[in-house]
Amino acid sequence: MAEVIAHRLAKKQKEISVAEFFERNKHILGFGNPTRALVTSVKEGVDNALDAAEESGILPEIYVEIKNHEDGENKIIIEDNGPGIVKNQIAHIFGRLLYGSRFHAVRQSRGQQGIGISAVVLYGQLTTGKHAKIISKIQEDRPASVTDLVIDTNKNRAEVVNKDIMHWEKPTGTRVEISIVADYKRGKRFVYDYLQSVSVVNPHAQIAFKEPDGTEHLFERTSEMLPPKCVEIKPHPHGVELGTLIKMSKNTKSRKLSSFLKSEFSSMGDRTTNAVCEKAQLDKNLNPKEMSREHFLALHKAFKKVKIMSPTTNCLSPIGEMLIKRSLKHETQEISPEFIVTASRPTSVYSGSPFQIEVGIVYGGNLPKDKPVKLMRFANRVPLLYQQGDCVSTTAISSIDWRRYGLDQPSGKGIPSGPAIFLTHISSTLIPFTSESKEAIADIPEIESEIKLAFRECARKVQRHINKKVRRVKTREKFELITKILPEIAKKSSDMLAKPIPSLDKVITKIMDVVWIEDLIEYEKANAKPVQSTLFDDSSEIQEGGWITKSTVLVVNYKNKPQRFKLYAIIPEDAVVGTVTPKPTKITQNYIKWNLDSISPADKRDVYFELAGLEKGDFDENDLYIEDINPAYVIGADKWEGN
Amino acid sequence: MAEVIAHRLAKKQKEISVAEFFERNKHILGFGNPTRALVTSVKEGVDNALDAAEESGILPEIYVEIKNHEDGENKIIIEDNGPGIVKNQIAHIFGRLLYGSRFHAVRQSRGQQGIGISAVVLYGQLTTGKHAKIISKIQEDRPASVTDLVIDTNKNRAEVVNKDIMHWEKPTGTRVEISIVADYKRGKRFVYDYLQSVSVVNPHAQIAFKEPDGTEHLFERTSEMLPPKCVEIKPHPHGVELGTLIKMSKNTKSRKLSSFLKSEFSSMGDRTTNAVCEKAQLDKNLNPKEMSREHFLALHKAFKKVKIMSPTTNCLSPIGEMLIKRSLKHETQEISPEFIVTASRPTSVYSGSPFQIEVGIVYGGNLPKDKPVKLMRFANRVPLLYQQGDCVSTTAISSIDWRRYGLDQPSGKGIPSGPAIFLTHISSTLIPFTSESKEAIADIPEIESEIKLAFRECARKVQRHINKKVRRVKTREKFELITKILPEIAKKSSDMLAKPIPSLDKVITKIMDVVWIEDLIEYEKANAKPVQSTLFDDSSEIQEGGWITKSTVLVVNYKNKPQRFKLYAIIPEDAVVGTVTPKPTKITQNYIKWNLDSISPADKRDVYFELAGLEKGDFDENDLYIEDINPAYVIGADKWEGN
Repeated sequence: MAEVIAHRLAKKQKEISVAEFFERNKHILGFGNPTRALVTSVKEGVDNALDAAEESGILPEIYVEIKNHEDGENKIIIEDNGPGIVKNQIAHIFGRLLYGSRFHAVRQSRGQQGIGISAVVLYGQLTTGKHAKIISKIQEDRPASVTDLVIDTNKNRAEVVNKDIMHWEKPTGTRVEISIVADYKRGKRFVYDYLQSVSVVNPHAQIAFKEPDGTEHLFERTSEMLPPKCVEIKPHPHGVELGTLIKMSKNTKSRKLSSFLKSEFSSMGDRTTNAVCEKAQLDKNLNPKEMSREHFLALHKAFKKVKIMSPTTNCLSPIGEMLIKRSLKHETQEISPEFIVTASRPTSVYSGSPFQIEVGIVYGGNLPKDKPVKLMRFANRVPLLYQQGDCVSTTAISSIDWRRYGLDQPSGKGIPSGPAIFLTHISSTLIPFTSESKEAIADIPEIESEIKLAFRECARKVQRHINKKVRRVKTREKFELITKILPEIAKKSSDMLAKPIPSLDKVITKIMDVVWIEDLIEYEKANAKPVQSTLFDDSSEIQEGGWITKSTVLVVNYKNKPQRFKLYAIIPEDAVVGTVTPKPTKITQNYIKWNLDSISPADKRDVYFELAGLEKGDFDENDLYIEDINPAYVIGADKWEGN
Repeated sequence: MAEVIAHRLAKKQKEISVAEFFERNKHILGFGNPTRALVTSVKEGVDNALDAAEESGILPEIYVEIKNHEDGENKIIIEDNGPGIVKNQIAHIFGRLLYGSRFHAVRQSRGQQGIGISAVVLYGQLTTGKHAKIISKIQEDRPASVTDLVIDTNKNRAEVVNKDIMHWEKPTGTRVEISIVADYKRGKRFVYDYLQSVSVVNPHAQIAFKEPDGTEHLFERTSEMLPPKCVEIKPHPHGVELGTLIKMSKNTKSRKLSSFLKSEFSSMGDRTTNAVCEKAQLDKNLNPKEMSREHFLALHKAFKKVKIMSPTTNCLSPIGEMLIKRSLKHETQEISPEFIVTASRPTSVYSGSPFQIEVGIVYGGNLPKDKPVKLMRFANRVPLLYQQGDCVSTTAISSIDWRRYGLDQPSGKGIPSGPAIFLTHISSTLIPFTSESKEAIADIPEIESEIKLAFRECARKVQRHINKKVRRVKTREKFELITKILPEIAKKSSDMLAKPIPSLDKVITKIMDVVWIEDLIEYEKANAKPVQSTLFDDSSEIQEGGWITKSTVLVVNYKNKPQRFKLYAIIPEDAVVGTVTPKPTKITQNYIKWNLDSISPADKRDVYFELAGLEKGDFDENDLYIEDINPAYVIGADKWEGN
């Protein structure tokens, strides 16, 4: 009897193809409801289009169109100017799940799973019964190929319904047309927001979007520079799993442990390789294929004990602090925020994959004070729209006590409330998404820790900013009181006594008792007045037609003794220093330093410098430091802690 | 040049196996960090064990053991008393992803993807390099088979390392031993909580748990009854996708549309089939294999226009309101909550799959008043521990304005704060999880809507409860004031006037001006005093050794005129009514009704009834209604609205 059960159950056992699995579980791919299905479809198409153009060194020009039919059927059209796809690959790329070019390349790209666009084809045929059409052209003087296909889900293979050629005016490119059931009315706003966010973090891409009613939007390119091309690298020994290590040893062509380590991993030079072998007590001439599990276990442990260089960063393409700031500024124009701070972490590693965290905080302005802060999340320059609640960035932000930084947060946990927007960007050769819909990042401890470090750094900047502001406001109130009331009293008293009005400088300085530092930033078109760099020869770097940022720092001594100290102004990355007055003591890549001579009480000093190579508004606030003076006496600059 | 790019890119294209995909994306399966990896591994093993036993009609006896090794290596052992697995299936079930018995069965089960346990094997070999061991015995008088295996991820096939047989004292069963890298210290509490939650919603299962330090826990069986066996059903026409419909038509053996509809779908009888064909303007003798996309489109639309019976519920195994209440009571013993309410929705359908929602709210007691309410989520009797933020149950709860129900909720959205626990259980033949880690349910509109309806129903009960309580407290205060102060005054006055103390009944009733209804519930061991049902013959249903619930309702007329009205007491499901006094006017499955004769002012009336067939505490509060009296005059019962 018992045997009968096991045998009966055995008969039901079967395998299903990955396509059939996802057909039954379309929500896993982000097609759970008709609104999301629309956004997911556009997203997969646009990600692919951007990857295709960038990989081939072409500035992306993407065209997105949605055609609306009765009964919720929508035709999604996505066209790129990439290199096109060779005919015999089209059926595989669009008609098979888990087929792609980016699985084993340790390099940053949007697509990484080989599922995305085939999933849209699958969802399309599931909901509308229609096939997908792919037009592709790979050479200027040749016709384009046209392929109509469906996915045979039992086999996870494309079934090509029709093949043709046609004339296409594009030199090269790919156009995809897929009909899906979707809720355009509700999804519309999300698609627009998505495309806008894409354009914000991909300033080199031009995206045109045509709505069903004919309305056209153009997200213009704001940069002609492609992001630096990401280089493929080998896995890093840190965090590589033991099982992966064993698997790699089976596939290697190396016959010796030392060459295996040097050829299959990044950051493994002769010295590190020797150190690792020694620590693991393994002969470096061992044949990797003959090593035992215990050998690999020792090797695996040694990886963690030996200091190994971080992976090179050229496999990653972070956005950059300046660009993040610029994007946030662009995004928040209508809010006119008080300030924007950013932080960028060095490259780190999880499970052998390098990653890098960049964050930004927009603070103040018209942002609501009693609502949770808005979170913006990006992964490899792709905006993440859904599943915010379970993203590691949300977890990381929630675990910081934001009350210390002036935000409201009951019980010191959870997403804080306050007038702020928090941006997180992760770049990685393998983004650990929680599901194939690629909307949330898994709670990998290494990643969580880096996000926390980055936000803490930002938070400290916010705090410093708020403190500075509070002190400045207080002092200014005092100052205005003194400079209005004292002269009145002086005048009245003088009148009554019929004596001349006395100089009040001494009194004012006595009451104020601070050194007041204030700055003003202006912008001027560079070609209006060509800049002569007084310090560097490479003034050629200053682009014609760019902007000159002019920064004036006013230092007033409201103390009753002469003051002499050192002043530092931080220079942003990518900026080129032009005219500087007075002559600075030192200029480095990061700062300008002045020794300010003795300033008499009530006397003031002007400090001026110009920056080129920045966009208007990139540099909108000085970061000033002082040395050799008690910082408690200074309003508008912090203590210099070295750089 | 352009062609070169497309050709160059084509060379990189390749397919990977589903095993390799998940090896690279282990976080998708719930192995993102070492804490979760531990819980996920135990969970997958226990889910399988429960499914195996239940499917074969065996009361589950599960043994879970974790052995701790150095360096974070943990051996997970899970043993069941199921029917065992035939030898030649072991390699497939444990060594291949997307292999299982439950893909096409439209029936509720814990496992549904054919991924879970193979994923644990995969994670184990990835992190420890060790193989998995499976011991299985399918017949009492035969030896058990022992299989050691790893997964060849390139092929998604098992590689059997060793095969053997052994003596095992169990009649039948399966034992799985998998070594994984996990954080036992941090994960320990989660494993315990998980097993406890499993035992709460699976009272028929017995689970033993042995910790690495030898500590043993036993979650005892509290019910000897297996949940009713779930029947396999066919897809329901409501919500079936057009593409699925077309695919089904290709695979059917039916030669006529009418027989296709009747044989491949549930709820399609002759009449409904005819109505659908007519609405679609299709000849019911059409050969499904020869129908065009337009035909199917018409058919698909007709499904939505014709009234089709809901799917039968015997493919689902909901927990039941009483059991939910009992479980919640058990879970919250230490909290001593004020009350527990539950609600259960009828079966509904999404994408052709039936599902059912059950919810419960625990309110008051020692629960913290200023923290967000605690959410407990279950799917097919499996507790969901992670990804709460993106679960449709969270979305549904967050979209209800809970401020109306006395909970704190800034801006009327989000998870409310207050002294409450919210439980959600979804049963379905296909739970739409957001990822293969099966922790959150996708935002399917139909499911969200049902959860909201269920919680609104519960919330109304909460509100009624709170209102009743508030009124009762107020009236009681008034009452206590009157009954203390008035007699004092009367006594003093009488003393002063040397007259006898007058009767205050009239005065009190005049001031109180209500009918006061109060109840008391007691429990008594049934065998201590056998119950004689005065109303039904089937007193045999009353189990020996069970509990008798004794309910006394006290009605006092504090109005200054005689009152006569009807009183209803609601009887819970599964309860059998015993002695009732006075003689009721009517008894149905749902309620007992009394016509209360005229009660004079200041007079009182006792109503009493007994219930059998319930556990002690199942029925802990009367649900009383009144008719033919203004409800505003009554404290302790609501207006009868029919049942």
